[in-house]
Amino acid sequence: MSGDLAAIEAALAAGEAGFIQELMAFCRIPSVSADPAYRDGIAEAARFVAGRLERAGFDDVAIVPTGGHPVVTGGWCRAPGAPTVLVYGHYDVQPPDPLERWTSPPFEPTLRDDRLYARGISDDKGPLLIPILAAEAWLRQHGSLPVNLKFLIEGEEESGSPHFEAAVAALAEELACDLVVSADGAMWRADLPSVTVASRGMTALDVIVHSAAKDLHSGRHGGSAPNPVRALVRLLASLHEEDGKVAVEGFHDGIVPPDPAIVEAIDAVDFDARAYFEGIGAPAPEPLPAGRDLLIRQWLEPTLEFNGISGGYAGAGTKTVIPSQAQAKITCRLVAGQDPAAVREAIRRHLQARLPSGYRLETVEHGPGSPAFALDPDDRGLRMTQDILGELLGRRPLRVAMGATIPIGAVFRSRLGAPTVFFSFSTSDEDYHAPNEFFRLANFRLGLVAWARLIDRLKELKGHG
Amino acid sequence: MSGDLAAIEAALAAGEAGFIQELMAFCRIPSVSADPAYRDGIAEAARFVAGRLERAGFDDVAIVPTGGHPVVTGGWCRAPGAPTVLVYGHYDVQPPDPLERWTSPPFEPTLRDDRLYARGISDDKGPLLIPILAAEAWLRQHGSLPVNLKFLIEGEEESGSPHFEAAVAALAEELACDLVVSADGAMWRADLPSVTVASRGMTALDVIVHSAAKDLHSGRHGGSAPNPVRALVRLLASLHEEDGKVAVEGFHDGIVPPDPAIVEAIDAVDFDARAYFEGIGAPAPEPLPAGRDLLIRQWLEPTLEFNGISGGYAGAGTKTVIPSQAQAKITCRLVAGQDPAAVREAIRRHLQARLPSGYRLETVEHGPGSPAFALDPDDRGLRMTQDILGELLGRRPLRVAMGATIPIGAVFRSRLGAPTVFFSFSTSDEDYHAPNEFFRLANFRLGLVAWARLIDRLKELKGHG
Repeated sequence: MSGDLAAIEAALAAGEAGFIQELMAFCRIPSVSADPAYRDGIAEAARFVAGRLERAGFDDVAIVPTGGHPVVTGGWCRAPGAPTVLVYGHYDVQPPDPLERWTSPPFEPTLRDDRLYARGISDDKGPLLIPILAAEAWLRQHGSLPVNLKFLIEGEEESGSPHFEAAVAALAEELACDLVVSADGAMWRADLPSVTVASRGMTALDVIVHSAAKDLHSGRHGGSAPNPVRALVRLLASLHEEDGKVAVEGFHDGIVPPDPAIVEAIDAVDFDARAYFEGIGAPAPEPLPAGRDLLIRQWLEPTLEFNGISGGYAGAGTKTVIPSQAQAKITCRLVAGQDPAAVREAIRRHLQARLPSGYRLETVEHGPGSPAFALDPDDRGLRMTQDILGELLGRRPLRVAMGATIPIGAVFRSRLGAPTVFFSFSTSDEDYHAPNEFFRLANFRLGLVAWARLIDRLKELKGHG
Repeated sequence: MSGDLAAIEAALAAGEAGFIQELMAFCRIPSVSADPAYRDGIAEAARFVAGRLERAGFDDVAIVPTGGHPVVTGGWCRAPGAPTVLVYGHYDVQPPDPLERWTSPPFEPTLRDDRLYARGISDDKGPLLIPILAAEAWLRQHGSLPVNLKFLIEGEEESGSPHFEAAVAALAEELACDLVVSADGAMWRADLPSVTVASRGMTALDVIVHSAAKDLHSGRHGGSAPNPVRALVRLLASLHEEDGKVAVEGFHDGIVPPDPAIVEAIDAVDFDARAYFEGIGAPAPEPLPAGRDLLIRQWLEPTLEFNGISGGYAGAGTKTVIPSQAQAKITCRLVAGQDPAAVREAIRRHLQARLPSGYRLETVEHGPGSPAFALDPDDRGLRMTQDILGELLGRRPLRVAMGATIPIGAVFRSRLGAPTVFFSFSTSDEDYHAPNEFFRLANFRLGLVAWARLIDRLKELKGHG
């Protein structure tokens, strides 16, 4: 390790208390992208990120409008001839509900057992702050960076990034780079170093069944009036086979076999099915599925998942009403070869064909969706991130897939011609789409050191891509 | 018509503006019985009713505690040897949600087109105020009533009256009477005079499917984790045949054939199926059912109705979550011969038998439920109410059944040995379990006159029952 790097790492360690205060301030901003009620929080978070980049020493920092929430850009590009790397992250967060299940308020970061609890702290505010702080330490210590470093921080990741691809296309010249390093993503397990080389795609569809023009009294009208909940549950129940496989014609069209390297990794990991169900607190099904099969279902098979269902009365006690509509929120995780728009259309067609007479079906789309992503196994950036984690953790990381969706991989490949590697220090058990989201401070510290080293190592990227 | 009665009716007409102000004040009280958040509104409404009875001239007015919300009682019993009649009503109301669909706020009564809009105004605050005002006019004009008149006003009708039967049993001596006249209920159609001689029973059951201990990220866990919405929709879809008939074994046990008089009434009414679906604003199913069949399904067949379904995210946009639980609120309308407890148990058994492995089923009951009710076709009180409506409306009312449930009929028969007739001036199209509930002021005026006459006529009841 060079003397420079040692001094940078020492400065990062010395600054920790202040960094945690900054992270807490960032997490106090309720930047929920999915719900228009949080518009002010989105704007405030974008300003926070832009201000932080400027303070770190980046040039040309800008809050750039898109068709939706803005992206924040900035860069340090004073190393002509050196490689150029684009860091990606997002400043928006998931909705906080159900609020009553949070131990401490979602937008009041709270420290317990060396973990900070707050909505968005693991996904992605903590991991995003790390490269900014590491680059700042480099610039303070050294007055320069060994590579050209750009930032692109979006505000709609938790809403399916509906305007992201257009924004990247519009900014393609400004964002040109040899490699994208994502500060979003997550390590698979806290006890097992890993790098992510593939992720599932996603597409979303709301399904709404309408019947009467208004809610009706179930005494007067029960038996003669249509009940949209009854129609909806029949429709939804038809979407899966009894074993959970998706039963929609055309849903699986175009699927290509998975990279065998990922299947090998699955075989190498002794995934414990019983421990999995214990971990999520669910009764283990009987017969118990093989652990290998569970992991294949998480990483390499598509899903059609109900994220929410609603209609009629949901309060205390009873309300004898026949609802006028009922709806479900559906998202599908896609594997390589599936086309998001074709999947939505297959579902819509399936439901419309089964809609009973006397009801009206409405479907609502949320952006174009994202195809699945897979990284070239020989990618140089990928090897660098593996090397650094191996040095710091004493164990070479596995190459794993992820069930979750990071649509950026496909966007950066098509719009910038650059590969994307994931270098995030959140862990996928940190409840980032559930109450009581947290971030391990040990990984915050680890990430600062790792990013300081990655910035150093990236100079070797020259000729990459 | 006697001179007394003419003077009373003139006084009622002269007092109208003040009565409407009183009704508005009553409806400003948010007395929602199903939701504990409205506890203060319940207490205030009970005090309002008790105060109004005292002011009208009734003795021994009391707010009597029960296992739940209190009942209000009072009476004028200074006519020894004359018949005794108990007036029934309720001061509680349905929950007001969905709030965003109200044109004017639910607890701010608003006049539009000779209709007053407010939650609970048609069910049952308007109809309940009528007999109090009519009796008050009698007492002011005449200093006495021709019969002994008692009141019993409950506060849990919209929650299935879970403590009502016990309260009536405990107060049986005080409530002893020859006839009960209910100010609750509703005329079937605004354009067709009718009296109700039978009503369906009801029972309620919440069904909750649990899986993981907390909400999960649908990216990481999708495919391997159980989704309780998926299990719930399969369970609920199994409860009906495709044609809407209930598919639960044991559900129809004990059903006895309906009173042929009601079927004759159905045949006499030319129920227009197309107009029915137009009226509720729903697409007409194809093929269109016969109008007669729709009315039979409303009045004489049992239902299993979904009043609400919920689970996971229901906000704007998308949230990629696998919910930890999902639930549905079910009520069944029962016909003669069905046992409410046996129906609940049949549903529970049906669902438990079909629950997939890996989930836990919870059911929540809301009181004992109510069996169906049917009045003796030769009842004297029934003939009186028919006579009065015939005089006032120029057309003898039909005897109809009602799909809705008024559990009091069975309770008063078993606990007081008295029959119950319905003499309510709300109409069943007044959206009383939906947004924008209203009450026709024309029927408020009609009801005041009709009740003044009924109080006069009831003296002929002597020897009844």
